[in-house]
Amino acid sequence: MSESEIDVVMLSAGSDLPYFTGYEAMASERLTMLVVKQKGDPMLLVPQLEAPRVGPGPFEMVAWSDTDDPIGVVARTVGHPLRVAVGDHTWSAFLVALQGQLPGVEWGIASELTKKLRVKKDPEEIATLRTAAEGVDRVLSRARSEVRFAGRSERQVARDFALLIVEEGHDVASFTIIGSGPNGASPHHEPGLRVIREGDLVVCDFGGRVGGYFSDVTRTFSVGEPGKEEIEVHALVEEANRVGRSVVGPGVPCQEVDRWPRSVIASAGYGRFFIHRTGHGIGLEVHEHPYMVEGNNLLLQPGMAFSVEPGIYLPGRFGVRIEDIVVCTATGVDVLNHADRGLVIVA
Amino acid sequence: MSESEIDVVMLSAGSDLPYFTGYEAMASERLTMLVVKQKGDPMLLVPQLEAPRVGPGPFEMVAWSDTDDPIGVVARTVGHPLRVAVGDHTWSAFLVALQGQLPGVEWGIASELTKKLRVKKDPEEIATLRTAAEGVDRVLSRARSEVRFAGRSERQVARDFALLIVEEGHDVASFTIIGSGPNGASPHHEPGLRVIREGDLVVCDFGGRVGGYFSDVTRTFSVGEPGKEEIEVHALVEEANRVGRSVVGPGVPCQEVDRWPRSVIASAGYGRFFIHRTGHGIGLEVHEHPYMVEGNNLLLQPGMAFSVEPGIYLPGRFGVRIEDIVVCTATGVDVLNHADRGLVIVA
Repeated sequence: MSESEIDVVMLSAGSDLPYFTGYEAMASERLTMLVVKQKGDPMLLVPQLEAPRVGPGPFEMVAWSDTDDPIGVVARTVGHPLRVAVGDHTWSAFLVALQGQLPGVEWGIASELTKKLRVKKDPEEIATLRTAAEGVDRVLSRARSEVRFAGRSERQVARDFALLIVEEGHDVASFTIIGSGPNGASPHHEPGLRVIREGDLVVCDFGGRVGGYFSDVTRTFSVGEPGKEEIEVHALVEEANRVGRSVVGPGVPCQEVDRWPRSVIASAGYGRFFIHRTGHGIGLEVHEHPYMVEGNNLLLQPGMAFSVEPGIYLPGRFGVRIEDIVVCTATGVDVLNHADRGLVIVA
Repeated sequence: MSESEIDVVMLSAGSDLPYFTGYEAMASERLTMLVVKQKGDPMLLVPQLEAPRVGPGPFEMVAWSDTDDPIGVVARTVGHPLRVAVGDHTWSAFLVALQGQLPGVEWGIASELTKKLRVKKDPEEIATLRTAAEGVDRVLSRARSEVRFAGRSERQVARDFALLIVEEGHDVASFTIIGSGPNGASPHHEPGLRVIREGDLVVCDFGGRVGGYFSDVTRTFSVGEPGKEEIEVHALVEEANRVGRSVVGPGVPCQEVDRWPRSVIASAGYGRFFIHRTGHGIGLEVHEHPYMVEGNNLLLQPGMAFSVEPGIYLPGRFGVRIEDIVVCTATGVDVLNHADRGLVIVA
């Protein structure tokens, strides 16, 4: 904080709070806020009815009741700071109210400080990410034989995956994208009532949380025998995924992890169908720093964990994505997911 | 907007966006934002990879790619507004970035405008809330006979409830608070590994979504025969719930719906153990305006939908809460939940 000339950091619901305190707040209209000044003990302001959830931590807890004014408490606590950094996911309703009571403050966001710490995972965090990744790998292995795709809706299949995610050791299933046939061309497709048919490719992108940390993996299955272009496009994405993983190593700019897989896809003429960056960091958030995207010159360092997930999306036809979580090591890359990346045929 | 002298409204992920456009955005580091100026068509800025999710709507859609600057697009679109209202749940990271590019703007929050519309539900919305309420009533009815409490962890019981919520017609189970024995004294308890025992009271507070709208109900069960004080406290909360519902009607200040049940509990000597407001509005959010809390002088109007949920929480011992969703009508109150409010004994 003193290096960055930040007088106060204010963390509300979001992952910085559990990262630093072990307490995970509920995002709600009732303000939870950790107020950290350069000197003195941090104050954790919590709604009275949530105070029983708070364990011991490196803060002084202050509970406010539903008839108190928590914004006023924060404003009085901080005095007259010049620069304040607020948690990235803090609701604007809180920030606007704080700005009304703290005129003249220069506002920044907490991740500008916290990402320096959070972007590099320690061995314990990597072990948890590995546990999570192994869980979804087992889900993929089981799904090949246990999940029936043909004749069932995406939503039904998504529920099967959600149950498997929990059965394979996650505390909770967090997301299950099942995009079949033309819906696979919508990268963040919401599983719906479309009934999966013989000949469909199905993009399966899912994950859950283990001890606060996320898994996130994608494989694309073929329901019955795939068509010729489906095979070609899948092979291309598989090669792009392989190249993306192989680029990873200390000192490599993040954007290189985007460029190399993209060039594989572009040189085959599918460049305009790869409509997202190649990857995102992962940890206490599914998406966090560092991002594998053109323009990000950040150099990879040992401990950085992120996805490599090239894809090709042909509107109205089908999509293919293959995603693994990897960790940059002192000498190269540690790939956390190992599930078969080939075009697996399911029933 | 013109009445409130708001030049621009900016809605990101949050419930105002689907309320006005039918499109529900994912909350993520990729900005989705509906920009509404006093004149001209609204613009919906969406991440390119989510553009296939967007259906037709009363806006011009603009997709941005992962190498674009969406904040810059918003800033250029709005020109030089004087007053801007931003969606309440918009991440502060976006607001701080927008403030950097739009100096001199006076910022407010969108709910100051939108709550005037959203706080009163139309007949279709009430029908959906009723469908949701009937679903959780059926869950309670089934739970009495189908869920085994004694000898199982809160987390196991919570999973049973989550499955029942979906089986009884919800699109998704949204929350399942199962607070047993002393954990019941923590109103927002996270279900954990505590094994439920004979003689425990168990606070069961749960809900899901149907067509975008939430259910939210609480009943407190006794596992086997309850003790004497458990019976007394439960009867007191049941009476407070009844009184709270009976106060509801057009023209009644919201705070009266808090005061009357509170006085029931206070006059029996348990006032300091009722540690939250009596209720919250419900709709596209679990918690939204209007709030039944001391200090809220808003007068109830027909169509307002909210919870009545008094509770008593005895630290280290047990808790009781009984919650119903009600709608203010032209003549009184329409209670949406009907599940048995007595102290039901379960196994």
